[in-house]
Amino acid sequence: MINKLIQNIQKTNAPIVVGLDPMLNYIPPHIQKRAFAEFGETLEGAAEAIWQYNKEIVDAVYDLIPAVKPQIAMYEQFGIEGLKAFQKTVNYCKEKNLVVIGDIKRGDIGSTSEAYAVGHLGKVQVGSKRYSCFDEDFVTVNPYLGSDGIKPFVDVCKEEKKGLFILVKTSNQSSGEFQDRLIDGKPLYEHVGEKVAKWGEDCMGDSYSYIGAVVGATYPKMGEILRKIMPKSFILVPGYGAQGGKAEDLKPYFNEDGLGAIINSSRGIIAAYKQEAYKHFGETAFADASRQAVLDMIADINQAIGR
Amino acid sequence: MINKLIQNIQKTNAPIVVGLDPMLNYIPPHIQKRAFAEFGETLEGAAEAIWQYNKEIVDAVYDLIPAVKPQIAMYEQFGIEGLKAFQKTVNYCKEKNLVVIGDIKRGDIGSTSEAYAVGHLGKVQVGSKRYSCFDEDFVTVNPYLGSDGIKPFVDVCKEEKKGLFILVKTSNQSSGEFQDRLIDGKPLYEHVGEKVAKWGEDCMGDSYSYIGAVVGATYPKMGEILRKIMPKSFILVPGYGAQGGKAEDLKPYFNEDGLGAIINSSRGIIAAYKQEAYKHFGETAFADASRQAVLDMIADINQAIGR
Repeated sequence: MINKLIQNIQKTNAPIVVGLDPMLNYIPPHIQKRAFAEFGETLEGAAEAIWQYNKEIVDAVYDLIPAVKPQIAMYEQFGIEGLKAFQKTVNYCKEKNLVVIGDIKRGDIGSTSEAYAVGHLGKVQVGSKRYSCFDEDFVTVNPYLGSDGIKPFVDVCKEEKKGLFILVKTSNQSSGEFQDRLIDGKPLYEHVGEKVAKWGEDCMGDSYSYIGAVVGATYPKMGEILRKIMPKSFILVPGYGAQGGKAEDLKPYFNEDGLGAIINSSRGIIAAYKQEAYKHFGETAFADASRQAVLDMIADINQAIGR
Repeated sequence: MINKLIQNIQKTNAPIVVGLDPMLNYIPPHIQKRAFAEFGETLEGAAEAIWQYNKEIVDAVYDLIPAVKPQIAMYEQFGIEGLKAFQKTVNYCKEKNLVVIGDIKRGDIGSTSEAYAVGHLGKVQVGSKRYSCFDEDFVTVNPYLGSDGIKPFVDVCKEEKKGLFILVKTSNQSSGEFQDRLIDGKPLYEHVGEKVAKWGEDCMGDSYSYIGAVVGATYPKMGEILRKIMPKSFILVPGYGAQGGKAEDLKPYFNEDGLGAIINSSRGIIAAYKQEAYKHFGETAFADASRQAVLDMIADINQAIGR
């Protein structure tokens, strides 16, 4: 799947990923109204609004981008109905040949991590049958529990040729509270980065490992160091745009081959129509605003990284 | 909810929690057969088997215990159908007046943690209506992202009078890989423990905080230190029994009032009928085996802690 991600990036010349993190207040009123007219102001109605919103955005941008990253929390908050919309979104994006990164940030002890890995990347056994459930291509994983919480994910990735992005340095303001603390003279995130490089060693695609890392755009100096610590790991970079990360800071996240990083934008794309720059599209053409925002983001990043 | 947890513990004289972590291979063949006869070897069939298994165990033990801890991964691996069984289990246990600790180990940046908190502990807004979705009483949370990933959970807990158990020192073998590393002369888990104590300060129930911690039974020396660092935090202790934690090691997790800790056993209870000691119950009376295992666990722990 890392090979497919790279192919998709090369085909689109766009090292970006669109975060499908729908909040109800991003969704234009006409879509909410239509969904609520059919299902009432219910969880089902909310899920339908999310799905219609996602579908229209995906239809408008899929030819420009290599991948999407649905954030499962935004669906899970609407319970079972929300998770159905998550599943529908994953499946639809895969039909459109997009690589799907499930932003699930799971992680637990061995047997439990195995269950998550099976449910999101692998196949679960039921009697004599096997089923894929959420079936993303990559998922994000939390490393706090150490190797035996990660290994079951790695095992399933090997079997299914899928991949991981392991949290190393997150984009949020208080990420440094634990991640930046010095251990033997090096911040915790570097120690985690070293482990990511090691975990990824025997899961190599053609040029990069299946096992990648999450490093926030908001910490470019750290990105530079981590790039060197994990030369064969793809870096998923959240925090561009709405969270404050700038394109000119992104160069250090890439290798000299112009690969090695994929930059996420969520709100900046899916709710583009709410921004001053794209307001003229209007609410009904929100997906056209998203398309323009994708084009602008690609240009912004490619210029900054000299691609 | 911390007050209710303490009341339930005092009423049952049992500082324990039963982990409802069903694996299909724990479920006796007659239950699987019945479910598959009705729904086929499908995800729905697996979910039905899990639900029937859980229900029979809960019916057999609910009067003996204060709380249950369903591990969501074991349900999530069966996709939407599995999560429906999770929800059914949560609701059923609450009907039985059990405190429900959702072992979900979520944690993300601010707005995303908020979505998880809303979906699992709070109410989500849909138009003019508000809905509770998974509606557990407590959830487990991962601290790797720092305060701004925890705060949205704390805020929802304050509003709903619910609670958290934040991962401090986990029970698994490689938990020390990051958690034990020394920072300013103290292991990371102590730094996290200090934060837990601080986060919990303004969320006090009558005698304990709503904000608790997870500390594995497999590390009693660390438990002793953490007990002192977080005097007002309840400690959820996994790792007793099947994972190797012994009753005599559990004393340091408790305060002098005999409270402050709740010991989890999952496999040891729900799959008791598979153990040598309870084999004589037979597969069809698996729930009676679970009841006996609960009684034995309570006696074992109360004796060890001198309760």
